[in-house]
Amino acid sequence: MSVGKLEECREHIRAQLDAVVEFWLKYSHDTVYGGFFTCIGRDGNVYDELKYVWLQGRQVWMYCRLYRSVDRFRRPDILEAAKAGGEFLRKFARVSTNGNKWKCAFCLTRDGKAVKVQRTIFSECFYIMAMDELSRVTGDKEMQLDAEQMMEQLIYWVREDASGLGRPQLPGDVPTNSMAVPMMLLCLVQQLSEGRPEAGKKYAELGSWCVTEIQQHIQRDGTAILENVSATGAELPGCLGRLQNPGHALEAGWFLLRYAADNNNKELQRTAIEKFVELPFESGWDKAHGGLFYFLDVDGHCPTQLEWSMKLWWPHSEALVAFLMAYSQTRSRELLENFFRVYEYTFSHFPDSKSGEWFGYLTQEGKVALDFKGGPFKGFFHVPRCLYMCESLLDDLLGKHG
Amino acid sequence: MSVGKLEECREHIRAQLDAVVEFWLKYSHDTVYGGFFTCIGRDGNVYDELKYVWLQGRQVWMYCRLYRSVDRFRRPDILEAAKAGGEFLRKFARVSTNGNKWKCAFCLTRDGKAVKVQRTIFSECFYIMAMDELSRVTGDKEMQLDAEQMMEQLIYWVREDASGLGRPQLPGDVPTNSMAVPMMLLCLVQQLSEGRPEAGKKYAELGSWCVTEIQQHIQRDGTAILENVSATGAELPGCLGRLQNPGHALEAGWFLLRYAADNNNKELQRTAIEKFVELPFESGWDKAHGGLFYFLDVDGHCPTQLEWSMKLWWPHSEALVAFLMAYSQTRSRELLENFFRVYEYTFSHFPDSKSGEWFGYLTQEGKVALDFKGGPFKGFFHVPRCLYMCESLLDDLLGKHG
Repeated sequence: MSVGKLEECREHIRAQLDAVVEFWLKYSHDTVYGGFFTCIGRDGNVYDELKYVWLQGRQVWMYCRLYRSVDRFRRPDILEAAKAGGEFLRKFARVSTNGNKWKCAFCLTRDGKAVKVQRTIFSECFYIMAMDELSRVTGDKEMQLDAEQMMEQLIYWVREDASGLGRPQLPGDVPTNSMAVPMMLLCLVQQLSEGRPEAGKKYAELGSWCVTEIQQHIQRDGTAILENVSATGAELPGCLGRLQNPGHALEAGWFLLRYAADNNNKELQRTAIEKFVELPFESGWDKAHGGLFYFLDVDGHCPTQLEWSMKLWWPHSEALVAFLMAYSQTRSRELLENFFRVYEYTFSHFPDSKSGEWFGYLTQEGKVALDFKGGPFKGFFHVPRCLYMCESLLDDLLGKHG
Repeated sequence: MSVGKLEECREHIRAQLDAVVEFWLKYSHDTVYGGFFTCIGRDGNVYDELKYVWLQGRQVWMYCRLYRSVDRFRRPDILEAAKAGGEFLRKFARVSTNGNKWKCAFCLTRDGKAVKVQRTIFSECFYIMAMDELSRVTGDKEMQLDAEQMMEQLIYWVREDASGLGRPQLPGDVPTNSMAVPMMLLCLVQQLSEGRPEAGKKYAELGSWCVTEIQQHIQRDGTAILENVSATGAELPGCLGRLQNPGHALEAGWFLLRYAADNNNKELQRTAIEKFVELPFESGWDKAHGGLFYFLDVDGHCPTQLEWSMKLWWPHSEALVAFLMAYSQTRSRELLENFFRVYEYTFSHFPDSKSGEWFGYLTQEGKVALDFKGGPFKGFFHVPRCLYMCESLLDDLLGKHG
């Protein structure tokens, strides 16, 4: 692979990142109530004023991360928007339902009234990411404390007692290890520990627990990653147990690769690449039409999710990061070739050449099925995170850093 | 339109109904634990043993209704299966969560342990339908009492206090009139009142309330049916307020037509046809590829539901019933033409000529997207109910009854 091709790729990704940041700076800010509009139509129009908390937290995190680590984004307008988003979150995200002071809403009205609460931990996860990253930029100790206290609550819900989340205990609802949970916790451990040896020590055991829990999803004698397993790491019956989510496995792959690099763990690096990058790519890539399926059933049954065969933007974003990180750690030619395979599909299908940003949802055949740029689950996160990480990995590979 | 064409149509529908009944009799019965498997693959294989309560109730109801009203289905195997399903429901469907004895689970394990509870009323609705219809066949007074008592609970949740359903009260979650709720209640009123003047009197006010609530969904100066409106019948902001579900509107259409006929209300008949049959068909029919869209946004924004452009079996089933009932009440040529338009699309796309029954989920272009015959939301209900009602309407039209 020529250096020229990598240079060209880096230029393209850099330009894409600039354009995507401008899109959200231009269309998503609510200058009246603070926070961000996330339901943004193809041309930038706000088609719904609801504010999804996952996406508020992710946008604050992403703005701060760009501000902190990419020189050309150290701009006052980005910092101000992040602060306004953080302020909105601190003021409105937490609801006092179930008598718990840390439970966050899933969705708020434009002026911050809670509309919906999920009985999961994900709103809280993105709240923590936002507060931690924002406190690193502003130096605000209260925000850092906020992040740490919510993290304690989260750990308690996951490892001690989940009843505070509000799900009724039912005899047929067996304890399940869903890959999303240890993945998100590992991501938070990495976030909170970055550059802080004390926090690193504090969360070391949790990080190692997450890595073990994630690896429990390697099933069928190492031939498949399954999205849900039992609490003891056994395969679960039925559709739930057979479910595969290739994009999620690939995302877990680069979380593990990052952890392996931080801990100089070659064995884990090998597992991450073989099981969480190569395997889901092999099984998840649509040989007929290209692109990654959203869901699959490991035994080849038809998944019950109506959208199973659609091509979503985020699995492709995660695959780009996973393959490029795996290549940068190993310099294996095959990994770079697969990076470019995903790259070709992604950049020929998702970006909207007319109005900027990416489409999020394509049919199996690659036609745009939903044309908005932001929705209840698509915000300023997967696209810019992927572009930012790929740019940074390419900078390293091409010796542009430092 | 020639009588010959209606005769041919009746023969076809009759044969379809026979085949569909045989499919479920053959593949769906759990002879070990009772109740029905509902996750049935293309060729009849059970791909998941979970038992969805909506579908258990619906199958009991449908078997009993066929047994009670169609001579050729007055068969002991159908009655036995219905009884076993009813027994399973009575034993296992109700969970004691939130300290309420009538709350039903959404989903059970094969042996009846609750897996999931929804914070809505629909499992309970199908429980009532099942118990009432079964009691009419068996003469079991306890079952009838079961149905009536649960109905009282349901009315309380809908009209007095919904807190027993377990949804936290949130300041941004404004009271909403979702069309599904008055529709289901109207359906239950019609079910419980059939042939029982006393029950008819008891539920008369409720029936009339449901009809008013359903008509609140006529919005935009009578040019659109919207799926969700405020408690006072005003349009709601955002995607929720602009949502259209053409199949649901058509289903409401024939519920209203049946009510109008029972009450000899010509004004309501006109409203039902113009607003709930013709309007959703006009706006919901895909001019490019044929078939009814699943969801639309009244202002033409892209819906946020990933499956919005898919063609599902049940809106087409409801459209067939709606147009044929509207025609049989009015003898309007245009209504019959539209019945045949839906008929052509439906029977050339949904039935599986290889393994029987209907596919449930097609892409916008009409390709099979999910190939199972039963799943978490598709059971022995919409297809046989549609075929049974169309056969019966055609019998009347062709003078085959009595």
